[in-house]
Amino acid sequence: MGTNPYERVTAAVAAINDVLNAMNVLVWDARVNMPASGARARAEQSATLTTLAQERLLAPSLADDVAASRAELGADATLVQARTLDAVEEAIAYHRGLPPELTARLARAKGTAQQAWVEARRADDFAGFAPHLQHMLEIKREVAERTAPELPLYDALLAEYEPGVRASDLTTLFETLKATLVPLVAEIREARAPRTDLLRRHYDVDRQRAFALEIARRFGYDTERGRLDVAPHPFEISFATGDVRITTRYDERWLAQSMFATWHEAGHGIYEQYADPAHARGALSSDLIGLYAVSGTSYGTHESQSRLWENLVGRSRTFWDAHYGALVDVFPDALADIDVETFHRAINAVTPSCIRVEADELTYHLHIMLRFELEHALLDGSLKVRDLPGAWNEAMVSYLGVRPPDDRLGVLQDLHWSVGLVGAFPTYTIGTVMASQFYAAALRDDVAILPELTAGTYGRLHGWLHEHVYRHARLYRAGELLERSTGRGLDPSDYLTYVKEKYGALYGL
Amino acid sequence: MGTNPYERVTAAVAAINDVLNAMNVLVWDARVNMPASGARARAEQSATLTTLAQERLLAPSLADDVAASRAELGADATLVQARTLDAVEEAIAYHRGLPPELTARLARAKGTAQQAWVEARRADDFAGFAPHLQHMLEIKREVAERTAPELPLYDALLAEYEPGVRASDLTTLFETLKATLVPLVAEIREARAPRTDLLRRHYDVDRQRAFALEIARRFGYDTERGRLDVAPHPFEISFATGDVRITTRYDERWLAQSMFATWHEAGHGIYEQYADPAHARGALSSDLIGLYAVSGTSYGTHESQSRLWENLVGRSRTFWDAHYGALVDVFPDALADIDVETFHRAINAVTPSCIRVEADELTYHLHIMLRFELEHALLDGSLKVRDLPGAWNEAMVSYLGVRPPDDRLGVLQDLHWSVGLVGAFPTYTIGTVMASQFYAAALRDDVAILPELTAGTYGRLHGWLHEHVYRHARLYRAGELLERSTGRGLDPSDYLTYVKEKYGALYGL
Repeated sequence: MGTNPYERVTAAVAAINDVLNAMNVLVWDARVNMPASGARARAEQSATLTTLAQERLLAPSLADDVAASRAELGADATLVQARTLDAVEEAIAYHRGLPPELTARLARAKGTAQQAWVEARRADDFAGFAPHLQHMLEIKREVAERTAPELPLYDALLAEYEPGVRASDLTTLFETLKATLVPLVAEIREARAPRTDLLRRHYDVDRQRAFALEIARRFGYDTERGRLDVAPHPFEISFATGDVRITTRYDERWLAQSMFATWHEAGHGIYEQYADPAHARGALSSDLIGLYAVSGTSYGTHESQSRLWENLVGRSRTFWDAHYGALVDVFPDALADIDVETFHRAINAVTPSCIRVEADELTYHLHIMLRFELEHALLDGSLKVRDLPGAWNEAMVSYLGVRPPDDRLGVLQDLHWSVGLVGAFPTYTIGTVMASQFYAAALRDDVAILPELTAGTYGRLHGWLHEHVYRHARLYRAGELLERSTGRGLDPSDYLTYVKEKYGALYGL
Repeated sequence: MGTNPYERVTAAVAAINDVLNAMNVLVWDARVNMPASGARARAEQSATLTTLAQERLLAPSLADDVAASRAELGADATLVQARTLDAVEEAIAYHRGLPPELTARLARAKGTAQQAWVEARRADDFAGFAPHLQHMLEIKREVAERTAPELPLYDALLAEYEPGVRASDLTTLFETLKATLVPLVAEIREARAPRTDLLRRHYDVDRQRAFALEIARRFGYDTERGRLDVAPHPFEISFATGDVRITTRYDERWLAQSMFATWHEAGHGIYEQYADPAHARGALSSDLIGLYAVSGTSYGTHESQSRLWENLVGRSRTFWDAHYGALVDVFPDALADIDVETFHRAINAVTPSCIRVEADELTYHLHIMLRFELEHALLDGSLKVRDLPGAWNEAMVSYLGVRPPDDRLGVLQDLHWSVGLVGAFPTYTIGTVMASQFYAAALRDDVAILPELTAGTYGRLHGWLHEHVYRHARLYRAGELLERSTGRGLDPSDYLTYVKEKYGALYGL
């Protein structure tokens, strides 16, 4: 168990990490392999593991050892030691506020609500999911009230995903984005729409997989330390830096889906694979508050890495100038008559639509704002769960001008609420903004990156990100990471510059 | 946590069960999906979960609650309650003998040795596996000495798999079997060898899978509550009665492999799927001594269910008279010129060979006797690990008249030792003997079974097994189960009658 208090802290945290990583295996399996009839037992198993992790975290000996470590190390503590002790201390304080019964209830609800969501989505049956959502909202409200009674409900939940950010910051951010995006989208709707029919030709699924995975490898996703599977709702999850898995979904009549989802999830995966191995099983490679094994430092930061590879690289003209020939070689029947400009315009078509994960880079944020507002209303009780599908559809009409034809394409499209991720959607917009900041900083810092991108290689960009983001795991908070590597905190100006230039050129505005 | 001591016992056991079932998910994933680079972390995770399960089992409150339950329930305890308390008490006594450090060491060694075995087998590199085997043997020796110091080493290890059976019983059993099998195999070698070339034609893997799975369904394996995957060493594992998974391996040039492996593992799976749901998460649905979630009551009993469906049913002439036409429909190119008699003789060809899991029903036991003797010698130190490949090959020549061309087909063929299963091989022979006892009793008890088998349906046989074996989970010990359902303890006479009749007819002896 270690001979000094700090060693005892790291041994205890290592065991907690093992449990959290085992829980991730259970989650991956549940989403990729598990028969529906295994869900109830799986939920019990996850609940028990969560309880055990929490018990370990709350063992009096751990708090004692943290205090003794502080005393013993004093000002000689390394940054890793100091941040380790901070993280453990914060997590202990958080979980002391939660009765074990509540933690177990949350874990169990995650399992059963997720399965209910899968079934409700399959059957387009919101009523079948509604009681699970209601139950989850009640649990999350109770969690917020117990762990951060001083904060507004939404802020308390948001803090789990994006520490340091408040709902009021988001309101400001969304207003700033709207001021550019809404008129830009309006201008685009007046402009000539690009062809997108070419993406709906026949694209063999195995070839889609091979091409997307080869590019993901070039970005730096190490397939020897992971694997790519199929899931109805693509996701990335890690069990160790040596086992980081991604998923995607295929449509042989829709080229854009699996490819960008693969690169998106590969971006998440690369972040996890390249955490400094020194952090393995440490307090800086797991979210001890959320009891979730993840090396990325916040949800927004994680999303910045997926968006960077998916959009800033994967949807750029530079990228397709380098790789379009290879894609035509893979799909000669479908693409022989299409030039790179037409293809690039197709994959960047701005079209308000029902599904968030398939939205273009501009209207995407309207999907997020809608969810942000509905979550607020559900949490403060001004919106009842039974009225949610109607409110969703009204908001879709008002924000995007489209009405979902059914709840599968509406309120049932996202997994998040079913697994307790309430207040997490805004981190996608935060991540998008951060991605542009990191990308601009990288290209500024290392002028050799751009020529490499032009040549279709990614070693230097990967290298900059490794140096400034990946390797640190959770050593720095999102805000610190931004400050250290870009010189600024969260700031949408790089993102707005990017969209104005890119879409101005694409649509001739 | 329950309002009376017995409820507290069942709540504590339920949590332990959850951990053990979660460990099974980790094991399944490691053997089916995990990249090699995930092995080290996975081993740590399994070790930690084992430690947590053991800690829960050894919590003083559990022993107190068991004692209080005994006092409170007294003679009014139901059989389930009494056996639950027995099982928990025995497990506590066993694990009190093991320091947590030793349990963690064993769990960690299982993970790393298993991965080392996979790699050593791939590379035909026994030297790469030898230190892991040495380490494992030392751990197992220590476990035996601490948990059952009054028993000879081998008996102490065997007791974990087949409670109530001693090495001396096995020696007697093997002598009895030898007295019939050795002359029978000698006679067969003198007889005309059947054709087997027809099994080496081209058999499309997808079709092999579909046919084997359809038959497994008819036997009663519920594919809605399980799944069939590929693994280099086929196995069955369960996470709940609603999630019982099987694996097989395919060779498009060898029809007999995937099919019989699928039915073998399906037999194991059926046993797990049909345990009475009332036992779910209970002390009678997990091996609390081995810290392994399994509803079957002993290794031998489990094996009896796989052998029964694989061999007594799946290799019988009755079965193929019913299903051979369907097989020819699946593989018309390969089988159109082969009649059912020729096919039946081919799949029952007795041919001494290197690989245990591909051995025929007669020579199979020689593979087991060989392992039984080598395990003895390794445990008592009369054989050194470094000398094992040589000793293995000598024994193969002496028992079977064949010399493995390399260690992949020799000492490295089995997974068992790498995961700590030392002393477990004899349970395969025990299972074979039990299978014949159950089968003979079923046909005696219910005369309507045989006409059903002739018609290619299995409901009544499945029903007899459900009634007498499956539903009980671990309520009865193997010996009790045999006595209750067949009127006798372990007795090889049904098996010997079966092989003499079947192989006498097949080889015209």
